[in-house]
Amino acid sequence: MNDDNAAERVIQDLRAALTGAPPGTRLPTVRELTARHQASPITVTRAIRALAAEGLLDTQPGRGSFVAARPAPPASAAPDLSWQSIALGPRPPGEDSMQALLAIPRPGAIPLSSGYLDPDLQPASALGAALARAARHPASWQRGPVEGREDLRAWFARGAGPMRAEDFVICPGGQSALATAFRALAAPGDTVLVESPTYLGALAAARAAGLRVVPVPADVDGVRPDLLAAALHRTGARLFYCQPLFANPHGATLSPARRPEVLAEVTAAGAFLLEDDYARDLAVDGDPPPPLVANDPGGHVVYLRSLTKSAAPGLRVAAIGARGPAGARLRAARVLDDFFVAGPLQQATLDFVTSPAWPRHLRSLRTALRTRRDALLDAVRRHLPALDPPAVPRGGLHAWLRLPEGTDDVALTTAAAARNVVVFPGRPWYAAEPDAPHLRLTFAAAPPPLLEEGVHRLAQALRDG
Amino acid sequence: MNDDNAAERVIQDLRAALTGAPPGTRLPTVRELTARHQASPITVTRAIRALAAEGLLDTQPGRGSFVAARPAPPASAAPDLSWQSIALGPRPPGEDSMQALLAIPRPGAIPLSSGYLDPDLQPASALGAALARAARHPASWQRGPVEGREDLRAWFARGAGPMRAEDFVICPGGQSALATAFRALAAPGDTVLVESPTYLGALAAARAAGLRVVPVPADVDGVRPDLLAAALHRTGARLFYCQPLFANPHGATLSPARRPEVLAEVTAAGAFLLEDDYARDLAVDGDPPPPLVANDPGGHVVYLRSLTKSAAPGLRVAAIGARGPAGARLRAARVLDDFFVAGPLQQATLDFVTSPAWPRHLRSLRTALRTRRDALLDAVRRHLPALDPPAVPRGGLHAWLRLPEGTDDVALTTAAAARNVVVFPGRPWYAAEPDAPHLRLTFAAAPPPLLEEGVHRLAQALRDG
Repeated sequence: MNDDNAAERVIQDLRAALTGAPPGTRLPTVRELTARHQASPITVTRAIRALAAEGLLDTQPGRGSFVAARPAPPASAAPDLSWQSIALGPRPPGEDSMQALLAIPRPGAIPLSSGYLDPDLQPASALGAALARAARHPASWQRGPVEGREDLRAWFARGAGPMRAEDFVICPGGQSALATAFRALAAPGDTVLVESPTYLGALAAARAAGLRVVPVPADVDGVRPDLLAAALHRTGARLFYCQPLFANPHGATLSPARRPEVLAEVTAAGAFLLEDDYARDLAVDGDPPPPLVANDPGGHVVYLRSLTKSAAPGLRVAAIGARGPAGARLRAARVLDDFFVAGPLQQATLDFVTSPAWPRHLRSLRTALRTRRDALLDAVRRHLPALDPPAVPRGGLHAWLRLPEGTDDVALTTAAAARNVVVFPGRPWYAAEPDAPHLRLTFAAAPPPLLEEGVHRLAQALRDG
Repeated sequence: MNDDNAAERVIQDLRAALTGAPPGTRLPTVRELTARHQASPITVTRAIRALAAEGLLDTQPGRGSFVAARPAPPASAAPDLSWQSIALGPRPPGEDSMQALLAIPRPGAIPLSSGYLDPDLQPASALGAALARAARHPASWQRGPVEGREDLRAWFARGAGPMRAEDFVICPGGQSALATAFRALAAPGDTVLVESPTYLGALAAARAAGLRVVPVPADVDGVRPDLLAAALHRTGARLFYCQPLFANPHGATLSPARRPEVLAEVTAAGAFLLEDDYARDLAVDGDPPPPLVANDPGGHVVYLRSLTKSAAPGLRVAAIGARGPAGARLRAARVLDDFFVAGPLQQATLDFVTSPAWPRHLRSLRTALRTRRDALLDAVRRHLPALDPPAVPRGGLHAWLRLPEGTDDVALTTAAAARNVVVFPGRPWYAAEPDAPHLRLTFAAAPPPLLEEGVHRLAQALRDG
């Protein structure tokens, strides 16, 4: 404490000497201050350095301290932050694509890229009523289990084969579940296998976790089991990230023949399959097949399901589950990442998905998505007849358009933006070199006439490009 | 595709052969199936392996395949998940303490440990009204900027010196902000300095980010600047995590004399100071000093403020800000970690903190916390007169009780739990060896009579222990 008192006396002394003194005025020396305040030279030096850091005085080695030439810069002046580049080191990769993916379109732009439903397709009134009820329930503001409400976890477990409520943890959206899973199930330097192409948010989260991302080619029937087996063998990977249903961006569903093969390869390799079942509620043509986790007696599948895409961007609620030690690892990592999900959101989610409004929403959503998908594909056939028509996505939000050889997909995206149409280029969805230039076209974020107009302008951009 | 069709034919053939056949029945060989379906031996082997993974057949190397002795185990049977321990590798440290910290007390237990306000002290009705309004506002369900609402970020920036709205990003609670900051501002293997003792959630998040955590002693005036300078010099650390106001667990506030010294040392080292201003709204004796960031022209302070502790556990809203490249790094990492915070929660938060209910809540909270703090300290003096009375915390939620030399703080916690009193041991709050055994006693989570009774039982546990 004595040192502090001395430091405080020196600082007060210097502040008094500074007050009203013209810039350049010499201040007492370290030796003078040491004697005057019976403080150690270290204490005096620290006090001088503190005032120098506030911009009040300048020190000139060997000459002494002087009233600073100008006052500390006001908050509005641009400070010199160049020191930060040394402290921060190299910038991690992959963040630009995420920023672009989540950018909000200009008003009036036609959104042919979006990860969310058009507001017209969202059950805002049922959600609003559920959250308003939850908000007025004092218990919902209290802390529940860190893993999330038992009843909500049980709801997520119902569709997930051998999983039980206690295998799950509730997360604030699917991205947070992915980010936690890559950190919890692998260590920096490990390899993760991914379909190629695949969801760029997963690519970015895996890279941010320090993982080496190795692509495994997929086709219209999903990932190729023979190449998955080869990749598991060659890399020793213990984690395979997969969207077996309506994969983002290309829309493929893992075929019935490949399902057991993929599970067998993962099992044989002693690996985990992270099943990102993001589009379970977005089937357009009939009921979707069950998730892979339903055929996983051995605890190899880590299962992720989010409600954000099937409801509204504001409903940031997802669940991730795994059995055995993997589940414990996931739940422990979630606590470190953000403790638990806000109680009112959990209660509103449970209320909504167990009400008649939920199946009603899913039915009308399916019809609307089918209309929009067909409208987008019609528009592509009409305005871009020279291109291979995209494979018909049987669910999800997107179609995957192969561009003519040599087209620059990023430049075309810019050209489309100049015509006020937002599309997303194919390149960022590949962990390695793309097989061909592509665009991802979203059919869920605009009504049919806008889809038609957007594709029309895209065709102009491609022609004039 | 041909391979897949062949695989599918083989699988169907085998399923037909399996149906109704008694266990042990020999199935067609690879050679027979290869000929019958014009499939490659690899395809046939993959098909057999897939059915084996479903538990339908057994393969015996060199002998062939046989109908499995029993059907696939039902979901209720305990599966063999021992392979997971190979895939997962070593378990990360520090997670147990977090689980204990966030465990929900048994009904009827006296909570002398909690990170949150007693429900009686929470503004549940004002919060509920604000969230109910936000819920019924369709726009709040839509996506806003990933960094969070501009107006809410501006509110957080008001108290934060040179920071502006665009320097901040809204997070789902303070823990998520901490976890992101440790990952975004340092790389695995880097050193982070922390006060000793310090918040165990920060210790766990820093370790999970792969950082080396080096403690710097603190006393009743906060961290010691001379030792901070020595630690910065010795370790080359570029990041110092600090709670300058009512530090958790020991309650100290960085003294006026030390504030400029700490900033000067951090500036001289070209380092960041992560200011966790978790207790800004929890001042008990008069107004708190401004945050360190208010005296930071050089962009060294990364500023974190949460509303969860001052409002309710269900209001998981915090903001973290930094100027310059550090801010960009933080915001980019937040997007990878969980995209953005649910819109209705952001709107409700803004609504609440800009309403007359907020200053009213803070005033009554201050009075209640003072009463409870005094009641806890009185009870300690009365029931534990032989101990050094704890330093009087001038804010926050906790007092820090030094135990007699040689006391086992963890065993005492267990003994108190047997008497239905929840306390938290001191050991997990240290990054290295504790200087002495301690308990953290929370005064915010129970009314005065329960505080009195809890300390009474704690004294019994210590005496009988």
